[in-house]
Amino acid sequence: MSQKMQEYLKKAEVLIEALPYIQRFNRKIIVVKYGGSAMIDETLKKRVIEDVTLLKLVGFKPIIVHGGGKEISRWMEKTGKQPTFVNGLRVTDEETMEVAEMVLGKVNKGLVQLVESLGVRAIGLSGKDGGLLRAQKKFSDGKDIGFVGEVTSVDANVLLDLLEKDFLPIICPIGLGEDYQTYNINADDAACAIAQAVHAEKLAFLSDVEGICTDPADASTLISELTIQEGKQLIEKGTITGGMIPKLYSCIEAIQAGVSRVHILDGRIPHCLLLEIFTNRGIGTAIFEGERSRFYYGPDNQ
Amino acid sequence: MSQKMQEYLKKAEVLIEALPYIQRFNRKIIVVKYGGSAMIDETLKKRVIEDVTLLKLVGFKPIIVHGGGKEISRWMEKTGKQPTFVNGLRVTDEETMEVAEMVLGKVNKGLVQLVESLGVRAIGLSGKDGGLLRAQKKFSDGKDIGFVGEVTSVDANVLLDLLEKDFLPIICPIGLGEDYQTYNINADDAACAIAQAVHAEKLAFLSDVEGICTDPADASTLISELTIQEGKQLIEKGTITGGMIPKLYSCIEAIQAGVSRVHILDGRIPHCLLLEIFTNRGIGTAIFEGERSRFYYGPDNQ
Amino acid sequence: MSQKMQEYLKKAEVLIEALPYIQRFNRKIIVVKYGGSAMIDETLKKRVIEDVTLLKLVGFKPIIVHGGGKEISRWMEKTGKQPTFVNGLRVTDEETMEVAEMVLGKVNKGLVQLVESLGVRAIGLSGKDGGLLRAQKKFSDGKDIGFVGEVTSVDANVLLDLLEKDFLPIICPIGLGEDYQTYNINADDAACAIAQAVHAEKLAFLSDVEGICTDPADASTLISELTIQEGKQLIEKGTITGGMIPKLYSCIEAIQAGVSRVHILDGRIPHCLLLEIFTNRGIGTAIFEGERSRFYYGPDNQ
Amino acid sequence: MSQKMQEYLKKAEVLIEALPYIQRFNRKIIVVKYGGSAMIDETLKKRVIEDVTLLKLVGFKPIIVHGGGKEISRWMEKTGKQPTFVNGLRVTDEETMEVAEMVLGKVNKGLVQLVESLGVRAIGLSGKDGGLLRAQKKFSDGKDIGFVGEVTSVDANVLLDLLEKDFLPIICPIGLGEDYQTYNINADDAACAIAQAVHAEKLAFLSDVEGICTDPADASTLISELTIQEGKQLIEKGTITGGMIPKLYSCIEAIQAGVSRVHILDGRIPHCLLLEIFTNRGIGTAIFEGERSRFYYGPDNQ
Amino acid sequence: MSQKMQEYLKKAEVLIEALPYIQRFNRKIIVVKYGGSAMIDETLKKRVIEDVTLLKLVGFKPIIVHGGGKEISRWMEKTGKQPTFVNGLRVTDEETMEVAEMVLGKVNKGLVQLVESLGVRAIGLSGKDGGLLRAQKKFSDGKDIGFVGEVTSVDANVLLDLLEKDFLPIICPIGLGEDYQTYNINADDAACAIAQAVHAEKLAFLSDVEGICTDPADASTLISELTIQEGKQLIEKGTITGGMIPKLYSCIEAIQAGVSRVHILDGRIPHCLLLEIFTNRGIGTAIFEGERSRFYYGPDNQ
Amino acid sequence: MSQKMQEYLKKAEVLIEALPYIQRFNRKIIVVKYGGSAMIDETLKKRVIEDVTLLKLVGFKPIIVHGGGKEISRWMEKTGKQPTFVNGLRVTDEETMEVAEMVLGKVNKGLVQLVESLGVRAIGLSGKDGGLLRAQKKFSDGKDIGFVGEVTSVDANVLLDLLEKDFLPIICPIGLGEDYQTYNINADDAACAIAQAVHAEKLAFLSDVEGICTDPADASTLISELTIQEGKQLIEKGTITGGMIPKLYSCIEAIQAGVSRVHILDGRIPHCLLLEIFTNRGIGTAIFEGERSRFYYGPDNQ
Repeated sequence: MSQKMQEYLKKAEVLIEALPYIQRFNRKIIVVKYGGSAMIDETLKKRVIEDVTLLKLVGFKPIIVHGGGKEISRWMEKTGKQPTFVNGLRVTDEETMEVAEMVLGKVNKGLVQLVESLGVRAIGLSGKDGGLLRAQKKFSDGKDIGFVGEVTSVDANVLLDLLEKDFLPIICPIGLGEDYQTYNINADDAACAIAQAVHAEKLAFLSDVEGICTDPADASTLISELTIQEGKQLIEKGTITGGMIPKLYSCIEAIQAGVSRVHILDGRIPHCLLLEIFTNRGIGTAIFEGERSRFYYGPDNQ
Repeated sequence: MSQKMQEYLKKAEVLIEALPYIQRFNRKIIVVKYGGSAMIDETLKKRVIEDVTLLKLVGFKPIIVHGGGKEISRWMEKTGKQPTFVNGLRVTDEETMEVAEMVLGKVNKGLVQLVESLGVRAIGLSGKDGGLLRAQKKFSDGKDIGFVGEVTSVDANVLLDLLEKDFLPIICPIGLGEDYQTYNINADDAACAIAQAVHAEKLAFLSDVEGICTDPADASTLISELTIQEGKQLIEKGTITGGMIPKLYSCIEAIQAGVSRVHILDGRIPHCLLLEIFTNRGIGTAIFEGERSRFYYGPDNQ
Repeated sequence: MSQKMQEYLKKAEVLIEALPYIQRFNRKIIVVKYGGSAMIDETLKKRVIEDVTLLKLVGFKPIIVHGGGKEISRWMEKTGKQPTFVNGLRVTDEETMEVAEMVLGKVNKGLVQLVESLGVRAIGLSGKDGGLLRAQKKFSDGKDIGFVGEVTSVDANVLLDLLEKDFLPIICPIGLGEDYQTYNINADDAACAIAQAVHAEKLAFLSDVEGICTDPADASTLISELTIQEGKQLIEKGTITGGMIPKLYSCIEAIQAGVSRVHILDGRIPHCLLLEIFTNRGIGTAIFEGERSRFYYGPDNQ
Repeated sequence: MSQKMQEYLKKAEVLIEALPYIQRFNRKIIVVKYGGSAMIDETLKKRVIEDVTLLKLVGFKPIIVHGGGKEISRWMEKTGKQPTFVNGLRVTDEETMEVAEMVLGKVNKGLVQLVESLGVRAIGLSGKDGGLLRAQKKFSDGKDIGFVGEVTSVDANVLLDLLEKDFLPIICPIGLGEDYQTYNINADDAACAIAQAVHAEKLAFLSDVEGICTDPADASTLISELTIQEGKQLIEKGTITGGMIPKLYSCIEAIQAGVSRVHILDGRIPHCLLLEIFTNRGIGTAIFEGERSRFYYGPDNQ
Repeated sequence: MSQKMQEYLKKAEVLIEALPYIQRFNRKIIVVKYGGSAMIDETLKKRVIEDVTLLKLVGFKPIIVHGGGKEISRWMEKTGKQPTFVNGLRVTDEETMEVAEMVLGKVNKGLVQLVESLGVRAIGLSGKDGGLLRAQKKFSDGKDIGFVGEVTSVDANVLLDLLEKDFLPIICPIGLGEDYQTYNINADDAACAIAQAVHAEKLAFLSDVEGICTDPADASTLISELTIQEGKQLIEKGTITGGMIPKLYSCIEAIQAGVSRVHILDGRIPHCLLLEIFTNRGIGTAIFEGERSRFYYGPDNQ
Repeated sequence: MSQKMQEYLKKAEVLIEALPYIQRFNRKIIVVKYGGSAMIDETLKKRVIEDVTLLKLVGFKPIIVHGGGKEISRWMEKTGKQPTFVNGLRVTDEETMEVAEMVLGKVNKGLVQLVESLGVRAIGLSGKDGGLLRAQKKFSDGKDIGFVGEVTSVDANVLLDLLEKDFLPIICPIGLGEDYQTYNINADDAACAIAQAVHAEKLAFLSDVEGICTDPADASTLISELTIQEGKQLIEKGTITGGMIPKLYSCIEAIQAGVSRVHILDGRIPHCLLLEIFTNRGIGTAIFEGERSRFYYGPDNQ
């Protein structure tokens, strides 16, 4: 057999290896919170979109939720507006809200464009479309920080209807208040709320860390798998600190609401989504309910 | 009977008068090109949205296509960019395209927000979503004016799928080129192309004129009904001039492609859409195929 | 703006006012018990049919239940038969039953004809069709009064299947006994049983009174809204008397079986149905479960 | 084997014999024009209804069309009205029309009642329901004979929708004119028009003759099978005379419009419908297109 | 009336007699365990297939489960293999399993062929198709008897999907073990498990005995009807013995799992299935839950 | 990045490479004629089944058609029967037919078993099931060679119904004659007929040659792509000879009946099916209509 042919054969074997995973997640909903470096670096961006598109084509039902991050600040400066922060939260006056919504919209349709160019039917939504995300004012230690909101309800039917019509929904976290005013919502929180509402099989966060580490400064202390119970203990013991605490609580809440697994993936690794789903490797940290869910991919999964 | 009651009775009679029109357009698609004063004046805006929402609720299938107009120029200035025009067409470099798309997106979701606040399921799309509008570069007398495009195809299924799921689609005229680059499209042209693709019953332009007048300076010369034949003659005779010529040609093309009636309405009149549909009055100018279609609402229609 | 135009504008505003009500009852089933003056006076009749047809066209699902009243007596005389009554109930021997069924059938198809002439798909049923109404013999104080029956069961699927096929069902209250004999049923009772079986949102009785009054002789004592609790108290206190007592008990039963609101309307007012549904006025008396349902049309409903 | 058992065995064999016929007409529409003696004699009536019910249950889709015949005259006398005839057609003034419609309605619901008592879902319609039968005034040799109409169109969807919902439609031949007035239609004509509109496989007339005979006075001259061509020749030669001529022309028209076979059956024979369909015997006269359709039940059909 | 005609009339009456039974079992699933003489004798075989085909055509949903019996031994001899038995169970080594599967397959497709020749859509399955029958190794008094299995689960959806597509499923009792090895399953057990899984209305065993007799040597001691309670008592009292004991226990289990009636029929009587279903006679023994189910065909059923 | 990780990354890239092909054939039917070495060698067999299963899971609709080949001869010997051949065709007397059908059935269910073990819903059919393959006697140069048949018709609905219910159909080439006798059909012919009937996108033959070579003795003369026109010329010029001639004619016929591409693949190469579909390499010979279809996978396909 020629060398060329042997190379092709290896490729075929890779596809065959994917078979049990494709089967495992067939027609399951997977919510991907997309952000961080994977959103800024154009090559990483392309890899993420390729991954999600492949998941769609082989029968999964992915939903993307994204933020706008640095792009918002860039445009605020461009329009001569200085960002202000209270406790790390952006104070969002009307003008800021307007710019934020415009930037998120631009990012949103840009992602749609990328997915479409790979031949998959995408649709870009904000939480306003179909009244998808309803929100209420959020305060920061009692202080009014403007149009920052927290999710009060998700209209899952909007997403289920679009999935039924074979769209890949891409969502930016803008919500509608009780009186239909606009609120800016944290993208992580929106992804959690959406994953719960549509009973997602998986919720994957693309972040800029390796996952949860016992020592954040040392990548080799990465925790591959974490039960809810273990997670809570790590917080109590003070092993987990800072911004990871609220994130972990969100993950735990999502799992308790029926999401099977939540993943904190390192978005700086190309194709991290595919690697997570199609290998037993365990990129990043997987969080799940208890001991039983440890053997998620079958008994031979180490 | 008390005076109050008599007043109520009159209202009931108005509703009953609407009966034959509701019947006439039941489940028919109506494309509304929304722009001009009706988009700037907040009161007029609310009236238009109320009208479209009512049409949706009584069984019609409206689709809104809108532009961004003056708002785009305002934001370009805000970001320190000077608009340039060639033959009246905005020269659209990459930066202009970016701002234009952001502004159109903001306007788009703002309209969604308004419709949602009236309790109807809306969804905001650009031509990128689902690959709805495909476009190619447009030249102005052979001159390159940047990312200005003209529609090459419309994926009607995207809209039909959303209508089936009971969404009211609101569309801004951004298109995808052959290599998936972004193009800015004239909103009138987009509305025409969409109306043709979905076989709309009606296409209504909300404009800032009374309709087509034999003497544009004299509102009393308004032409209420115009066959294609008559329209062409008016152009030949020089009665119709300027920007109205290409608009009339677009209308004629839409009619020849199967749209029953095209209306040029005066968007400065509140509820002009309802008035057009629910009365025999004939707001603005109606353009249709030939003599036979003159009796559109039945033989008693004068 | 011309006077003509201002008049049109007012009409458009009336339509817009109807918007929240259309939304509120979209796809809801509304059972109308049709009888009394509204059935005899040709003008009133036309108004009722227009109302029901409009409700159908704007997305409601009306069902009409009607009696035959005076028409039955007229035809009995015509065929030389003397009506006999026991405790106000018509003694219904075989011959009477035959005439009653024929007259009800005639009235039934006459209503179908009217609705059809307004362009809506109607279908006329007796309780025999599809075995819709099953009945058993009813006695009056132990006395045998012939083929007078009371409803034992309603086959809701017959109506739901017809509604699904977009028919407007018009029903006359004839029932089938256990051995498939014919029974004459009181139209009010039939309407109640049907409204319960199809889980109607509303049940409206078109009667010849203003509604429930504390002093039936004085229209100004009309009670606009009545909770079940209040209704029972009025009966206990003796405020409500005579034929209104069993009617009120039927209404209460229907509400307890899941109908949201029961209305006793004055059928002598033209378009009373539309007025009830599209205004906050409150024609006649509305009966509902408790304090909470008082704010049926929203908090601004006075 | 006991005698009892042998008897049962014979019965089983009869059922098995029916197998190919059940298969042949599975899901086919069969229109039965029901009238004559079979409608008056209570035993014959029961047999017809049993037959139609069996056809329904084994997978056919029967539709019954019936007249009212002698019952109408009986009720006219009862109400003191004298029937008048012109050229054998009943002059139908408004009062006569009213009585006719009432009687037809009574007969209609009576048949529904019988079918329901055998456990099959029936629905009784006049041509008014769903606008099923549209008609226009018919003149007799230019003379105005009142509300006598001829069918101008049949809304087949009304019947197809009801068949889809598993109803057995029973129809009395009342039609709606252009201005929605009531017309009395000949039941044979209505049956023909309906069979054509729904593309029936068979149209069977239950009549009071053996079928078409070359000598009507001699039953032994019965013609079992007749092609259109042969039928026309018999009329030309004068073999067929009187009322049979228009009937034969109607049959020919129905066949040319797509009905496979038209049967003129002797309704005085109990179970004549079953005998026609489940045996090769050939009750009455079968009319069909040409030589090829002679072997309708297969080559072994003599 | 001619003698021929009278004969036909009797036949029609037999069909009419079947009416209530056709109605009773319309769309109900009936599992037939086919085996014994009825499978060997070609005439009896044809009768059974005719019966099942008729049941299918008149609206029942039959499923056939069959064994291979003597045919397996015949082919084993042909291939030079000696059958061995332990406690009456065939010791099934790999080679025996291979022959058994081939023979069952041949018998299976032969039955499909017969049903198809009667014009009904049949499909032949083993328990491997769609993973219909999952099994585990069965031991005989602790002894390993090779690839003999017992049902662990039935995938009812496979059958329901095929019934929905109007197939008549014919099943041979081969099952798949946990590691997808082949197991031979007792046909009676397979039929019981399938009847339970699809919630069959009836389960009929075609056997070579008259039914359950108090004295197996005396056909006149046949028990026509047996409640579960009575059945258990007969076993306790020692009236029922031998191979009938496990069979009766299977029947009882099936009834407790929701099958309405289990029948032990004498497959040597031609058309025994039709006789059971279309007469009140009671061929063989019917087993059911309790006293109440004794009046299965209505109160006039003696 | 660790070496392990880099290896994983390469795997992810292989999956991403498959993306455009998955897209290209999404929901398309692919008929695989399975035979030769790939059926005998257990490792090759497993590879083919893995390939087909993967195709199913990523959204294609594969159908397998297989023969029995050497296994039939082996079992004939086992049962003491000598194979006879006329012009290379097996003379098939009744006994041979019986053994052939049994062996094909065994092979068929064995394949079902393999597919099921990979977690995909398979169903094993012969041409008898649902009357899928109808056949007539085939003569060899006028000589009667027994129960050898050629396809007269395929009931595509049987396969389309099973595909709709998500089954992977596996078919052995047994057909039913006009009188429902059993015929043995050449598997290649059956695959061709089936591919045509279901309008397959592709028909792939797994054979024991590299493909079509200008010199069969020299693998390096393999023709990768062949238009119908070119194929005919090669036959005329005598380049293609022997058994390849009828095979090529079958391919041409299939293409003319609407199959887009026919492939002659070398079944001795593991995963040859995947290689054909997921690479641009072009395993074996692809036959298609004309020049235009040469660029099947897009313009960059060399």
